[in-house]
Order: sequence, then structure tokens, then C-alpha cells
Amino acid sequence: MAGPVPQARGDREPMKKWVYAFGGGTAEGRAAMRDLLGGKGANLAEMAGLGLPVPPGFTITTEVCAHFYAHDRRYPPDLEEQVTAAMRRVEELLDLRFGDPERPLLVSVRSGAPVSMPGMMDTVLNLGLNDATVEGLARMGGDRRFAFDSYRRFIQMYGDVVLGIDHYLFEDQLEDLKQSRGCRFDTDLDAEALERLVEAYKRIVREATGAPFPEDPNAQLWGAIGAVFGSWMVPRAVTYRRLHDIPGDMGTAVNVQAMVFGNMGEDCATGVAFTRNPSTGEKAYYGEYLINAQGEDVVAGIRTPQPFTRAMAEANGNAGSSMEERMPETFAELVRVFELLERHYRDMQDIEFTVQRGRLFVLQTRTGKRTAQAALKIAVDMAREGLIDRREAIARVDPASLDQLLHPSLDPTAERRVIARGLPASPGAVSGEVVFTADEAERRAQAGREVVLVRIETSPDDIHGMHAARGILTARGGMTSHAAVVARGMGKPCVCGAADLSVDYTERCFTAGGTRVAEGEVITIDGGTGQVMLGRVPTVDPQLSGDFATLMGWADEVRRLRVRTNAETPTDARTAVRFGAEGIGLCRTEHMFFQEDRILAMREMILANDSAGRRQALARILPMQRRDFVELFEIMAGRPVTIRLLDPPLHEFLPFDEAELEEVAASAGIDVRVLRRRLSELREANPMLGLRGCRLGIVYPEIYEMQARAIFEAAREVEERGGDPVVPEIMIPLVATARELELVKSRIDEVARELAEETGQAPHYLVGTMIELPRAALRAGAIAVHAAFFSFGTNDLTQMTLGLSRDDAGKFLESYRKAGIFEQDPFQTLDREGVGELVRLAVARGREARPDLKLGICGEHGGDPASIAFCEELGLDYVSCSPYRVPIARLAAAQAVLARERNG
Amino acid sequence: MAGPVPQARGDREPMKKWVYAFGGGTAEGRAAMRDLLGGKGANLAEMAGLGLPVPPGFTITTEVCAHFYAHDRRYPPDLEEQVTAAMRRVEELLDLRFGDPERPLLVSVRSGAPVSMPGMMDTVLNLGLNDATVEGLARMGGDRRFAFDSYRRFIQMYGDVVLGIDHYLFEDQLEDLKQSRGCRFDTDLDAEALERLVEAYKRIVREATGAPFPEDPNAQLWGAIGAVFGSWMVPRAVTYRRLHDIPGDMGTAVNVQAMVFGNMGEDCATGVAFTRNPSTGEKAYYGEYLINAQGEDVVAGIRTPQPFTRAMAEANGNAGSSMEERMPETFAELVRVFELLERHYRDMQDIEFTVQRGRLFVLQTRTGKRTAQAALKIAVDMAREGLIDRREAIARVDPASLDQLLHPSLDPTAERRVIARGLPASPGAVSGEVVFTADEAERRAQAGREVVLVRIETSPDDIHGMHAARGILTARGGMTSHAAVVARGMGKPCVCGAADLSVDYTERCFTAGGTRVAEGEVITIDGGTGQVMLGRVPTVDPQLSGDFATLMGWADEVRRLRVRTNAETPTDARTAVRFGAEGIGLCRTEHMFFQEDRILAMREMILANDSAGRRQALARILPMQRRDFVELFEIMAGRPVTIRLLDPPLHEFLPFDEAELEEVAASAGIDVRVLRRRLSELREANPMLGLRGCRLGIVYPEIYEMQARAIFEAAREVEERGGDPVVPEIMIPLVATARELELVKSRIDEVARELAEETGQAPHYLVGTMIELPRAALRAGAIAVHAAFFSFGTNDLTQMTLGLSRDDAGKFLESYRKAGIFEQDPFQTLDREGVGELVRLAVARGREARPDLKLGICGEHGGDPASIAFCEELGLDYVSCSPYRVPIARLAAAQAVLARERNG
Repeated sequence: MAGPVPQARGDREPMKKWVYAFGGGTAEGRAAMRDLLGGKGANLAEMAGLGLPVPPGFTITTEVCAHFYAHDRRYPPDLEEQVTAAMRRVEELLDLRFGDPERPLLVSVRSGAPVSMPGMMDTVLNLGLNDATVEGLARMGGDRRFAFDSYRRFIQMYGDVVLGIDHYLFEDQLEDLKQSRGCRFDTDLDAEALERLVEAYKRIVREATGAPFPEDPNAQLWGAIGAVFGSWMVPRAVTYRRLHDIPGDMGTAVNVQAMVFGNMGEDCATGVAFTRNPSTGEKAYYGEYLINAQGEDVVAGIRTPQPFTRAMAEANGNAGSSMEERMPETFAELVRVFELLERHYRDMQDIEFTVQRGRLFVLQTRTGKRTAQAALKIAVDMAREGLIDRREAIARVDPASLDQLLHPSLDPTAERRVIARGLPASPGAVSGEVVFTADEAERRAQAGREVVLVRIETSPDDIHGMHAARGILTARGGMTSHAAVVARGMGKPCVCGAADLSVDYTERCFTAGGTRVAEGEVITIDGGTGQVMLGRVPTVDPQLSGDFATLMGWADEVRRLRVRTNAETPTDARTAVRFGAEGIGLCRTEHMFFQEDRILAMREMILANDSAGRRQALARILPMQRRDFVELFEIMAGRPVTIRLLDPPLHEFLPFDEAELEEVAASAGIDVRVLRRRLSELREANPMLGLRGCRLGIVYPEIYEMQARAIFEAAREVEERGGDPVVPEIMIPLVATARELELVKSRIDEVARELAEETGQAPHYLVGTMIELPRAALRAGAIAVHAAFFSFGTNDLTQMTLGLSRDDAGKFLESYRKAGIFEQDPFQTLDREGVGELVRLAVARGREARPDLKLGICGEHGGDPASIAFCEELGLDYVSCSPYRVPIARLAAAQAVLARERNG
Repeated sequence: MAGPVPQARGDREPMKKWVYAFGGGTAEGRAAMRDLLGGKGANLAEMAGLGLPVPPGFTITTEVCAHFYAHDRRYPPDLEEQVTAAMRRVEELLDLRFGDPERPLLVSVRSGAPVSMPGMMDTVLNLGLNDATVEGLARMGGDRRFAFDSYRRFIQMYGDVVLGIDHYLFEDQLEDLKQSRGCRFDTDLDAEALERLVEAYKRIVREATGAPFPEDPNAQLWGAIGAVFGSWMVPRAVTYRRLHDIPGDMGTAVNVQAMVFGNMGEDCATGVAFTRNPSTGEKAYYGEYLINAQGEDVVAGIRTPQPFTRAMAEANGNAGSSMEERMPETFAELVRVFELLERHYRDMQDIEFTVQRGRLFVLQTRTGKRTAQAALKIAVDMAREGLIDRREAIARVDPASLDQLLHPSLDPTAERRVIARGLPASPGAVSGEVVFTADEAERRAQAGREVVLVRIETSPDDIHGMHAARGILTARGGMTSHAAVVARGMGKPCVCGAADLSVDYTERCFTAGGTRVAEGEVITIDGGTGQVMLGRVPTVDPQLSGDFATLMGWADEVRRLRVRTNAETPTDARTAVRFGAEGIGLCRTEHMFFQEDRILAMREMILANDSAGRRQALARILPMQRRDFVELFEIMAGRPVTIRLLDPPLHEFLPFDEAELEEVAASAGIDVRVLRRRLSELREANPMLGLRGCRLGIVYPEIYEMQARAIFEAAREVEERGGDPVVPEIMIPLVATARELELVKSRIDEVARELAEETGQAPHYLVGTMIELPRAALRAGAIAVHAAFFSFGTNDLTQMTLGLSRDDAGKFLESYRKAGIFEQDPFQTLDREGVGELVRLAVARGREARPDLKLGICGEHGGDPASIAFCEELGLDYVSCSPYRVPIARLAAAQAVLARERNG
């Protein structure tokens, strides 16, 4: 134990306390004194106060900074005395002396404001070195080269940050020296060369400042302290504070801390360790260390670190090499530190330590980064251990990271040859033969082959190919392009917008990164990273642990938002239910029209000249639609099902290429020219803004009437078969005016009345609308009069509000993110300021007009944690997302409740 | 003069006055008593009170209606007495008696609420007829057929509206009779046949009601009165009131008025006259009349009406036939009435009159409909005559009608064969040879031929063809499609969205209405009506009178809004200045890139691989852009000029068809496949929502830098040449976030700094933005920080807010208007509830952030009177519209001030 902390002397007025000491198992400050000691100082005090062996030091408070600027850059008169006393204490604790040629104490000087702030002076290391002390350091460590390397680094750092000398001057000098000595790396320079470099550096300082480099350690110290306080007012820091609303009178603290060295002999070491395994989450220490080394040695890769524990050493056939075996006492001390730290911080810690002459110093501890799997296991384990409660366990796991657990991933040990990169649109990794058309995908898949569908972009016409393929790769389109959305819905890996990809449909090949890949060749795509690789890269399957179910259960107890899924196929619906979906929030009926047997009737309907012709074709679709709904209702077993009536422009159902055109004309028995004309009539300049959504339902009322009938009949059939009764929620898309909804709803009500007459039993159902146009959000009050529910279609709402097409934005979104225009992809995370204001408005106006209005969201944002938090703030009733995002949404919804409670 | 109006008798408590009499040169009511007498009753009272010879009658007040519903559908006890007294007065005035078989008085009974309301009982005519009085009527008029025709009409009308008998029953009976008599028209039936019809009608009444038709005139009267009051509560009227917020306790009045007949001999007549010429506006009576006839005779076209004045008779070679000559005393009386009416109503009147046995009755007077030319002349004349003031003259002319005066119009006397109809997209009528490509249009135009360009739709690539053509016809696109907007900008007639048109580019022909029209055949289009006609229809040129300039001058004195124009060509700019434009509110720079010599450099720029290549191509465009701006600045002579930087997606500048593609590739010296690939890279699913506007300026900063330089250099050049100094307003399109504007503005400022260094003189300029995305409107506060002005691009703002493409909406806008979803085309008249709220928000937030923010509108709405009124309400600084709309905007802006003053 060290001597007492210096106190004010009795014969004076009590001094104001400007300096807070730490180290030697105690500290004058603590974590809560952030405003006074800055973030770094408060943390050091906390660690020291906890009894951790941090290198001793002291913090000069932010009040000194305030005094400094209030008094024309002068210090309080008693500051020097307090600094000197604190320095004495450090000397005593380490048995060294600041400026002593034999046993020199070296220190670091760092700035530390209450909030971290770029632009300010960061760090000066090895302060206290001069021509005399450098020799002492060399003797203490027995390493002259190290001593002079430290010295030349110190001069450069001090010259740059304290004296304001251009660091290029030093770097050029170093390069010259290396060249003249024929050295490639800094480490190739020997002690003598470095000694010369020190001389050269000192000349640079003299030339630049007109004064010699300060040899007096005290002058060095006060120079560095002054530089820290001075940097508080540099323009970059002032601007940063202005932009971030940080008050200028907050000030910065200065931290002065002893340097410790792990390279002073065989009883020295340096290392990094985790309190638990950051890869698997297993409760076992994990780390590596090096004897007689500095941290840089690990980084420079000159020496290979050794395992931390005996178990690790044995596992990689290196028994006897571990720290546990080689330095058992220090290891035991570290274990005590680990236990202390986990108890204190209640989380897995990542610790840097140095052993100087058998004495352990903990340099830093922080919450350790970990894999998704580890995060899950650690959170659940810690809750079971009683270290944290369940709510905290929920908060500990990043919902987005769960994605990694639900999809197969590339074997991290396998080699890979990356030929292109795109957007990580739908996670999971797969390999397969390259195909360029949906039909070819289907053909090969039926023959039992695994394929990856490669398209410039996909359209609804490719759905059967996407179903057949194991993964999808597109050259164009963003995170929410057709390919991405459909792939996520299907839970299939997808890389999209791979701009380097040049696809040639005619030649049936693509080129990327100088490589030409023909149809049939195998590639691997990783939808979690966006990588496209040549050949087959081995993958590993996901292991859903019991911890996963446990954490989900805890989340369900906490969350308020219901979680539904966007699903229309039985497979999707089953997957979603397995993942815990509580209903369907968006069943897109158009996907049901693309199957072989229906597309023909659909095309007949589109080509019909009048309402009668359309009705005839629709009558053929009705039983199939009904069957779809029956199956869906049965899978959902009484959970709510929201069905969106037909939404996309009709031309999406017509054939695209000439061959198919002729085939369709022949099978429909019409002139191919008629078909071509109809196609050209339906073609639109901007289909997103065209004849779609409820506009179809108004222009061709027969379509929605058929759909309503299919829904009612299906619900009835399910009940008659003894299934759980279902109250279908019929959702009208693309409503812009209250009148549209009123019109469409009145027709659906009419179908219901007809059915009631036919069967003697009135169907139960709700009619509501998507809010996906800015106008609908603005007019939500009038629209709510006719709507039992709103579902925010935030994909389209984002497109319209920002005037930004999901399919086309990929081209420049990256430029936009780089330019700081979008912090996030607005199609992934809801744009709160723009789109969010419309949603907020619509919620308020809708609820005012109709207090019992049910509110949900069914855009891609329904599966995005940040957007789910926004939904919780707005008090929506549910979110709906693709099946594989359901667990993410459940966890995010729980976290949103916790966040709301925290923020009052 | 008639006897006194009946008063309450002295021996009773004073009765409440339930009945107000009118006629005989006096009236108990007046126009201001609308709430009590209803609209119709108040107007009749006003006319009678003015001394006009209206047929006498009386009004039963709305208070009776209230009493009726408050007392279980019973009348006030003294009502009958007051009605009887009022009826006595009418009898005395006309020397007839209600129910008298010899000299029967017949009356009409009409409802009349304070606001007009569909669903309520309208009119019963000829009430008082029965088997006895019909004979009296026949004798009085000497026309038995007329008497029985009146009688059978009365029974049908009474049966339908009072007794609630299905009118088909009567109509079927009439048809049967006509068939059995071999008659084609009702008028072919003789008196005897009509007498039988009366019998048959009475049987229908008996069978339907179980009671005979009421022969007692008093029973008829009270039946009709009861029907009027009863109709106040029919569901349709109740619904209408609910939808229009009309209070249900307002009630309706009942008007009972004597019937007068113009067919009782040669001293009888009927006619219609205007106090001024409704076609030219000339101050001369204008009308026609028929001796011994009823109004129906004119309508039925059996007899040809005669001219009203001697001048008219002489003009059409029919001297001696006029009313002025044939009935000079009545004519003189009418002239006195005309003078009275114009003085009273201070507007040109359209008057219906009947002369019964030499006695003049004015049946109705209303403000007369007139042509645009007449409206202008009458307004200016009346102001000069002192009848109205200038402000009223301004209010009298419909701004939209001015369009007719500015463009040639079809000779109204010419024959026309209409083969198709489209939207009246840009007014004016022209004939020309049909061509189907822009190149062909140019070729033929250069050969001195007049052509009409027919396209399915147009794109910027067609601009040169549109310039060359006299008019444009498209099969697709709405009032604000590319074709429509460009045509209006050019002041060229355009019909667009002619859905019946089937265009075949390959065969170079179109078919419409069964007619096939090949290239080179002549058609005529009328952009004011949307008609497409075969062959050449003669047109008449516009005559811009001095009245036009006078009225415009008066409007300019009143209006607050400045009026700018959307113009980029010298021709447009000159036209606009001639029409009074006070600046350019939108100069679209992309139109400048389509000219032959520039498109090549533009394409080179697009095809360049890097920034250097783009800069090289842009350097070639720079001097041309500068020249454009110099010319524009000189024409505008110091008026403000707002220049929008490049906006459309780049692929619009690339060739479309294969032949052109190869040509471009050859001339650019690149592989056609490279060109094709680049084209496919640039292609977008929804170009409206793609890489355009400031997104271009951010991804390819070189473009805007070149444009900024061209603007600055042009302004400098104009000043150096001694021209008026100009402060260009540089407008950034499609801004969604404040950061975009900040970025682009900083680059423009940088170019300005460079120029200041080069020339020693800093350019003066403003940077502002279009507000055309919903997000921009919502974030206007943040955006205004970087913007000196906002210009509302309401075309795009409407597209985004409604999710509706201008180009594609044409297909269903008509269905939408029919279904009552849109009252107006939202691209013509600003959607106040939706888009308008965003504009209002943006104005408030923008001004709050920057009080001196300049605000304008440059969408098509800037030339629409209703939208201009909205701009005035919001306090915008200016509107900007196409050159031919400038006068409309000037007038509308003045009217908007008047409307605002009126509404306080």
C-alpha cells in the first residue's frame, strides 16, 4: 500500500481540490464524477477504487479548464503544488522518480472531457524521457533499442501535439534513415540508428520552434497539460460542440498516469483476455499473452502470442505454454480481477494487462465484443447466475444479430475467392449452379440440382424461379428491391445490387472482377455479407440453442407490441408460426396469381374486353383463391390474418419476351398483335405511381369482389370443418382519399350481404387500409371513418415521401451514405424526421377520428429494431415482418418497452 | 295596381305572418329574407319589389316547415286563412279565379330552401286544372289541344311528385297511345287523343292510390304544399344535408305563383332576350321571340323564333319580323325592364318573358352566360359606364376563359367530322399533315409543310419534333403529361390522352372511331375542346382587343402576387414578357441539352468512365450554356431569373431505338455494346423516383459545377455589355434533406469563389430549392437554413403525395372523377386537403426558420386560378406559369386579392 493522498496544509485556507489521485488500490474519484473528472478520469477512478491494480496516476479536473479560460489561460495558484504532491504519490507507489536518471518514472498525458470529442489532443506517451532518463530506462529494461525507440516516439508525439510541429517532418526523417540503412520496417532499425534519429528529431524541434526540445520532465509535463487545455478551444472542437449542442463551459480534464512496461525481463508480460469465450459464450476465460513484450509486439505480429489458459493450450496442442502454467500467481490474481470485474460491470469484460517485474497492472477493461451466439448464451447464463435480471438479459442481445443464428453461414475456416460484392440483402450462405432465367432455375431444381438464380433484377414473373433457386443474386436493386424483399420473405439468401456484375442474358454468362462465369458453373453467395464467391464454399448449419427459446420467452413477457408476419404461402406461414408469429399482418394476394394454373386465367381476365369477360375469368380463379385462404386460415389457427387485395399493376401478369408472348397469344386464342397492343396500353412510365392498388379495384370492381368472396367463403369453410373461427381483416392498398376506401368497402359489404343471403349467415370481417401514400397519412382522420384498421406500408410511404424508388436507389444510396445525407438506408430503418412525422400524424388523426382504430406496420421496417422502437413510441398495436425476422421483432419489441421505461 | 295585401284582422290576436305575397309591382319580402322565404322566394320578392311585372304569387315561409315538423306534420291554425287571402290577391291581380270553370287561375307550386338542395320536390305546374277548368282554359286560349296537353302533364307531374306514383306508368301509357295512333312525337297527338290520355292517367291514379284524382283545386294545392314540406325529410335530402353540413331545422319554403300563357292569341308571345350581346359583348339588346306560343314551342323546334330587335332582323335579311317592330309597346316596356335590371343587378341579364293578351310578364331574369370575349368587353364597358367599379370588372372575367382569346379557334360555323376525343391539353386549333416521328415532323416542317405530331406519348427526345409541329396529339397521358406541359409551354395546341386512338408506328398510321388515318393525311385538332377531326377545319385568329390590355392593367393595380413564367427558350421568354411576365420562375436547363450540337457532348459526358471524362465533355457544353443564359438574361432585362439545375434522369439523353443507337456509337467511337450496356445500367423501373434532380448533382458534381459557372459567366457578360444587372436565382431540384442542399450549395459557392478569384469580382446570386417531395415540405425548417428561396414544384409534389404519375394517371382519372373521388384533376387544380397541407406546412416552417425566405410556385398550378387563390391565401411571393398563362395568372392573382378581402 502507498502513502496517504496529499492534503491541504493546516496553516492555509483550505485549498480547492484540483487534482484527484488514483491507484494503489484506492481512488479519490469515482464513476459518478464524470463532469468533474471527464469520462476517462472517472473510469480510471472507478477501476482503481474497485481495487484493480491500475497504473497509478491522477486527474486534473475540468474546473481547472474553466479557471484556465476564465483567467486568461492561467492556472489556479495552488495547482502546481497539488500536481507535485500527486506525482510524489505515484513515485512512491512504483518506487520510481519522475526525471530520475536511474529509476525514471514515465507518464502518459491524456485529455478526457465528460463527453468524448474529436479534434482535441489525445495522448502523449513516455513523458519524462530525456537524454539522461532514456539511459535509465535502457538499463532498467536491459533493452537499449526499446528505450531509444520510446524516446524518439515521445519526441515525435510531443512535437506534433504539444509543440504543433508538422508530423510529416518526423516521418520524412524516419524514411530517410530507413532508406540510408536499407531497412524496410521501423523494427529493422537498431539502437544506434534510433539514437541518431533522436538527435535528428531534436534538430527538427529546434528548427521549427527556435528552442531546444525541453529536457526538463516538469517542463514537458506542464507543456502537455497546457496543450490539453488549449485543445479545448481549437476550431474543430468548437465546431463539434456547436453541432452537437455540447456546452463550451463544460471543459476537459487531464489524466496523468504512470507508464508500465511488460518488456523488462522474463518476469514481465503483456496480454489480452476475456472473462468468457466471446465466440461461443461459454463461461471460460479466453485470451492470449506474451512474456517480456510490449502491446505493440502483439500487434506487429513479430511474435506469436501464447494461450491464456491451460485448457486453451491443451486444445491447440501447446501444453505448458499457457499463462496459467507459466505465471500461475499472476494468473490467479487475474482470475480474481475477472471475478471482480464481472460482478461489478455485470457483463463479459475484455481486459488488457501488463506484468511489470512480476507485478500485475490492468491497463483497461471494457465490455467485450462477442458473436451473436455468444451474446445470447452470455445473456441467458448471466440471468441464470443471478448476475443480471431477465430484462437486462433481453437488453443485452442485439436483435439484428439473431439473423446470423437463423441461417446457415459460411464455414469461417474455409478458403473463399470473392469475385464481387453486393448488398447483404437476405442472410445465409448457399452454393449452386448459376442460372439466368426462372424457367431454367425450375428445370434444374426439378432435376434435383441446386441453383443460384442470377438476374439483373427480378420481377414477379421470376417468383417460380426464386422458389426453385437456393439463393438469388442480382446486379441491380437495393436492400428492399423486389429480389431482396421476396428473398427475405422466403428466408432465402440473397445478394443484390452487385454493381460489378455484368450480366449477359444472350450469352448466358456474367463477368465480375475479371472472371467470366457461365451458366452451370457453381458460385457461392453470402447474403449476410454480400460476398459472391467462385466455386462451392462449405457452410455450417445454424444451431438453435435452448437459450434462444428461453430468451424469446422472456422477451414475450415484456413486450407490448404484437408481432405478426408478412406471409402468403403455407411454407412462410408455418415458418412464421414456428418463430412465434401471432398472426399475418400482410398476405399479398398477388403472389397467389403467379402460379402456372392461375396466371392463364389472370391473363384472360386482363385481356377481356368487358366486365362480363373479366367476371368469367375471375370465376375460374375464385376456387383457387378460396383454397389458398382455407389453407392459410387453417395454419394460422384462429390468429388474425390481414389480406391485402390485389395491388400490383396488371402488366406484371403479362408475358415479357416475344417467345412467351406468342405462346400466351396462341393458348389464349387471340392475335399476338392484340396482346402486344394490350401490353403497350398497360405499360406505364412509372408503374409505382400508376394503375395499381385500390385504383384497380375501382376501375375493375370485379377483381376485389371475387377476392372478397373467396375470403368469406374460405372463412366459412374453415369453420364448417371445425377449425378455429377467423375474422379476416381485408386490407385495401394505395388509398389516397377517404372516398376510395368508402367505395371499395361498400362493394365488399355488398358481397358480404350477398353471402349472408345465400348462406343465411353473415360473414364476420374487418375492412381497413394501408397507409402508404403521404396523402393518406395527412387525411388519416377522414379515412379512419371507413377503416377498422390502418397498416402502415412504410416501404411505399418511404418511396413517396422521399421520391425514391427502392429498385433504383441502389445506384446512389452508397454515395448518399458517404456524403452523410442518409445515416441509414431509409428503406431499412424508418426515416423518423420525414416519413416518421407522417406516421405520427396519421396515428394521431386516425385515433382522434376513431379511438378503437387498430394500428400496425407491414413495411420492411416492421422487422427493423430501430423502427420497432419507433412503433413502440407511437403506441402501434403490432408490427409485421417476414418470417425470419419474427424473432428479431419479438426481441426488439421487448427492448423497445425497456427503452421506453428507461426514458420515462 | 292590385288591391292591398291581406292583413291580420283587428278582432284577433295579431297573427304570425306565414305567407308573403309578391306581384303587381310590389312584394312583402325582399332578397335579404332568404332564410325565411328560401332562395327562390327571396328572388321572386326581389324582382317583384323592383317593379318588374312578375306573375303574382306568394311564398309560404320556412317557419311553416319548422312548425310542420315540430307539430306532428300539422300546419299553424291560421295558415289556411293567410293562403286563401294571398290567393285572392293573385286572382284580383289577374282577373281570374282559382277553380273557376270560365276564367280559371292556374298556379305552379315549387319548393325553395335557403340553399338549393337535390332530392327535394321541385315543381308542379298548371295546378288548378280539372275536368271543368280545362274547358275554360281551352276556351280562353282557343286551343283545346294545348289545354288537354297541359292537363295530362299536370296529372302526371302531380301523380309523380305529390302522390308518389311511378312515372313509368304514365310514360308507358303515353307510348301505347302513340303506337296505337301511329304517332312518332308527343306533338303528333291531337286534342281528342290527349283527352283520352287524361282519362287513362286518371285511371292510373285511381288504381295506384285507391282514390280518384283530386278534382278540387284547393285539395290539389294543399296536397302539393304538403308534398313540398314532406320532401324536406326524404332520405336523399337528409343525406345531402348531412354531407354538406346543412342544419336540418333550416326548413324549406313553398312558392305558389300564377301561370301565364303566351299562346292565347296574336296579342300573346314568348321570348328570351339578353341586355347585351352575349357573343361579342356589344351593348345592344339581343334575343328572339315567338308570337302566340309557349316556351316549349321554341325548345321543340317546331317554329323558328323571330329576331328581337329591328337591327337583328335587318342584319339577317328579315326586316319587319322583329318584336321591336311587331310589338313596339311591349318592346318599349321590355327596354325599360332591361335598363332597370342592368342598373339593379349591375350585370348583363338573360331574361325570359311571356306576353299574355298584351300584358308583359317577366318570368325569370338571371346573369347571362357569355363568351370570353363578351365577358371581357362587358366588364370593361360597364366599368367605364360607371355601373361597376374596376375591382368588380376584374372579378367579372373568368381568368381561365382568357385562354380562348389568346389562341386561334375553330370557325364555329364550319363543319367538322370528329373522329376522336382526348383531353384539351393546350388550347388553340390547328390543322396539319399527320406525322409519327419527331424527325419526320422536322423534315416536313423544313420543307414548309404544316404537320401535327401524333405519338402514343412524347418524351424529351421528341422536343425538336414538337417545335417543328403545329400541334401535338397523343394517345396517352393526362393534362400534365410531357406532351401537355411542353405544348402549353410552347403555346402549341395539344390534345392528349385520346384513348380511342390506336397508333401503329410500324404501319405509320392510326385508327380512331373506325377511321384509318395514314401519315401525310390532314387532321385538325382543337386543344380547347379535345376534339380530333378529319381534314382541315377552318380556324379564326384571336383578336386581342384594347379591352384586354385595359383589364390587365386594372388587375395589375390590384394584385399582390408577382407573376413569373416557366420559360427556357428565347421565344418563350419573349412571349411571356409580352404577356406581362415579371421574371422567370422556372428555367429548365435540361431542355437546353437536347439540341443537335449539345446532345452529342451530353452523351459523351454520360458515357464517360470518370470525373475527368465528364469534365472534358462538360467543358464543351459550357460555352453553349453560357450563351443560352446570356440571351435569356438580355431578354429578361434585369427581371429575376430562376434557373433550375439539371433535373431529368440521364437516360433521357441517350438514344432509344437500335438505328440511332448504332449511329451514336459510331459517332462517339465506342462499341455499340458498351453503349447498350450503359443504357441498360441507366434504365430505371420508376425514373420519376430515380437518379435525378440534385441526386445527379451529388453523384456527378461536375454537372452542377459547369452549370453554376455558365450562369455566373453569363451574368457577368451581360453586365459587361451594359445590360441590366441580373442576380440569378439558382434552384436545386428534388431536395429531400437539408444536407443535400447544403452540399450542393457549398459546391456552387466554391465555383463562385473560384470565379471571384479569376475575375476579381464576386458573382451575385441566390441559391434556393424546389419543394417537390413530401419530405422536403415536412423538413422545410431545416432546409430553409440553406435556401434563399423555395419554389413549390407542385407537379412532382402532387405525384409523390398522391402516389400518382402524371403520365399514367390519364387511364383512370376519368373513372375517378366519375366516382366522385377527385372533384378536379389534381394536376390542374391543387389538391388543397392533401398537397395543400404540405405546402402550408412548408410555408410556415420555412418562414419560421428564415423570415425573409422568398416563396413561389412553379408547377402547372401556377397558372390555375383556383390554385393561385390558394397561393394568395398562403401569402406566397409569386406564381410562375407557362407564357400563355401569364395573363390568366395576372387576372387570377387580382381576383384572389379581392376574394381574400371579401373573406376578411
